[in-house]
Amino acid sequence: MVVRHLPKVEAPVQFWYPAPNNHMEIKEIKLEELNPEKFIKEKIREISSIVGDGLAVNALSGGVDSSAVTILGHKALSDRLKTYFINNGLMREDEPQRVVSLFKELGIHVEMINTQKQFFDALKGLTDPEEKRETITEVFYRDVFGKIVKESGAKFLLQGTNYTDVEETVAGIKRQHNILGQLGIDTEKVYGYKVIEPLLQLRKTGVRKVAQTLGLPEEIYAKPPFPGPALATRVIGEVTPERIETVRKATKIVEEELSNTEAFQYFPILYEDKVTGIREGKRDYGFQIEVRCWDSKDVKTGSPTKLPYNTLERLAERITTEVPGVVSVTYNITKKPPSTIEAI
Amino acid sequence: MVVRHLPKVEAPVQFWYPAPNNHMEIKEIKLEELNPEKFIKEKIREISSIVGDGLAVNALSGGVDSSAVTILGHKALSDRLKTYFINNGLMREDEPQRVVSLFKELGIHVEMINTQKQFFDALKGLTDPEEKRETITEVFYRDVFGKIVKESGAKFLLQGTNYTDVEETVAGIKRQHNILGQLGIDTEKVYGYKVIEPLLQLRKTGVRKVAQTLGLPEEIYAKPPFPGPALATRVIGEVTPERIETVRKATKIVEEELSNTEAFQYFPILYEDKVTGIREGKRDYGFQIEVRCWDSKDVKTGSPTKLPYNTLERLAERITTEVPGVVSVTYNITKKPPSTIEAI
Repeated sequence: MVVRHLPKVEAPVQFWYPAPNNHMEIKEIKLEELNPEKFIKEKIREISSIVGDGLAVNALSGGVDSSAVTILGHKALSDRLKTYFINNGLMREDEPQRVVSLFKELGIHVEMINTQKQFFDALKGLTDPEEKRETITEVFYRDVFGKIVKESGAKFLLQGTNYTDVEETVAGIKRQHNILGQLGIDTEKVYGYKVIEPLLQLRKTGVRKVAQTLGLPEEIYAKPPFPGPALATRVIGEVTPERIETVRKATKIVEEELSNTEAFQYFPILYEDKVTGIREGKRDYGFQIEVRCWDSKDVKTGSPTKLPYNTLERLAERITTEVPGVVSVTYNITKKPPSTIEAI
Repeated sequence: MVVRHLPKVEAPVQFWYPAPNNHMEIKEIKLEELNPEKFIKEKIREISSIVGDGLAVNALSGGVDSSAVTILGHKALSDRLKTYFINNGLMREDEPQRVVSLFKELGIHVEMINTQKQFFDALKGLTDPEEKRETITEVFYRDVFGKIVKESGAKFLLQGTNYTDVEETVAGIKRQHNILGQLGIDTEKVYGYKVIEPLLQLRKTGVRKVAQTLGLPEEIYAKPPFPGPALATRVIGEVTPERIETVRKATKIVEEELSNTEAFQYFPILYEDKVTGIREGKRDYGFQIEVRCWDSKDVKTGSPTKLPYNTLERLAERITTEVPGVVSVTYNITKKPPSTIEAI
């Protein structure tokens, strides 16, 4: 693990995509090479040695990556790591409370920071997916974390960036929210802290093995991936509190109906396009939701899960009945590639 | 059959939706009551008696409704009925040529009128589905047919409006393109001709029986329904020649792949929303197509056909490979209601 000092950039941050080979300095640890106990020991030692007797912070989302980092960090630094849950208003139903209480049971205090207004204000009027992602990234690192770090006096941010995040961003497929150094952003200069990324050499399956070995419950180590910009990724077009609430309700239904499948990931997407429906004999021009459910081993490729038609029918019926304004539901039938896992 | 003289309206046409019961004056002939030979004889006699030794015109789209009316009209009026194919630029691949040559084989001359530019000019910048429908209706009846009628001296327009068209429009679900009198539009005053609608009392299944009895080939009498505004109905958002070409290519694939099913109707829809895809390892922000395939007996209700997953996969693969710019394909899983057969 290296704390990289990459070329300096001037604020305001200019995102640039380096030549495809720049990330080759990061050596992947393949699943079959991974010894989780050894990996954990090494990372604890490395984190201790970098932070010394300084302070560090990290943001916990409750996903497997940030959860593993939280445990690694606390094992290395104990109370000198402060862990925050950034409630950006874009999370799933009850998720903030659930994550905080789950870590409380593990003996780790997580502080909830309510920043809904900051995120929604910044997202107002934005429809381009890359602009939305960059805005969420900027608000998160600059406004929210910049402030937390300044107030705490911490000089280090721990985060759960993994090998696939780097790969996809550097290849120019998708700007992952947690990619900074790899894009040439000197976080120390721009945001006032260094970023430490203990999981950078692992893909998701490796992270899951480490998380399980760290003693995290199955609810965490087997958790389907959920994107950094959260439900904002599941809304095409403008992100507003109302539109997030629509896709949040649909997410709850999709997760309830599909959690018993072996699928890699499943979620709904709210479209901006409206379609004609009919309610009680009258025209109802309403919203459309797409459901995606993926079979995938490595995120790099994927196929739509062959869900039985009675499951698809129940999904459509529940979503059009329980989510106000939705008149149409579709199911993704395209593989990755040429699709991607998420729609934006 | 009654040629109705409904309340006069002033130009420019104001579309109004009458109270739900206004259309009850039209008495449905249910399939089990229909004697197609007797029906045909009666309608031929009625058309003859209304038109007298005058001239009539009709527009043939090649669908079962307008095809049946074309045969009925020619049986009643022979050469005193002039039949036109209005090429509005919104038809399927090769459809205009195919329809004209098929009727030539039946001994009926159909004149092709090229009006692509008129329709695309009028549709420019329109995104609201009802506005698009009304624009196509207006260009068709006022500009195109108004001119044809004036030049031909005809006083009558024969058209294939059926019972479901009236019902859905009057109920306010969807403004069908061919509904005029039922909305209180006095076509004689507004467009200069009377409209005769011999199929007004039949639903689609009844029309198919009549069409078969009239000697039309199976390609016509069993043809899946295709909307009056044609491919414009399959484009969400602005209708441009490029977007029509995209959905036209997808339509050809969907029809090739699904014509061997027992489905009632099947078609793709081009969305305005764009989604992220990946091509040759690079991000490709592209178009999305939804495929709908319906099981339905009476159009009033419908269920998505339970197509096997290998069919769905082949559809997605062909569309994303053969239609430029498309990176994602979905399949409709919502019943009607609350969905409708078409998306807009």
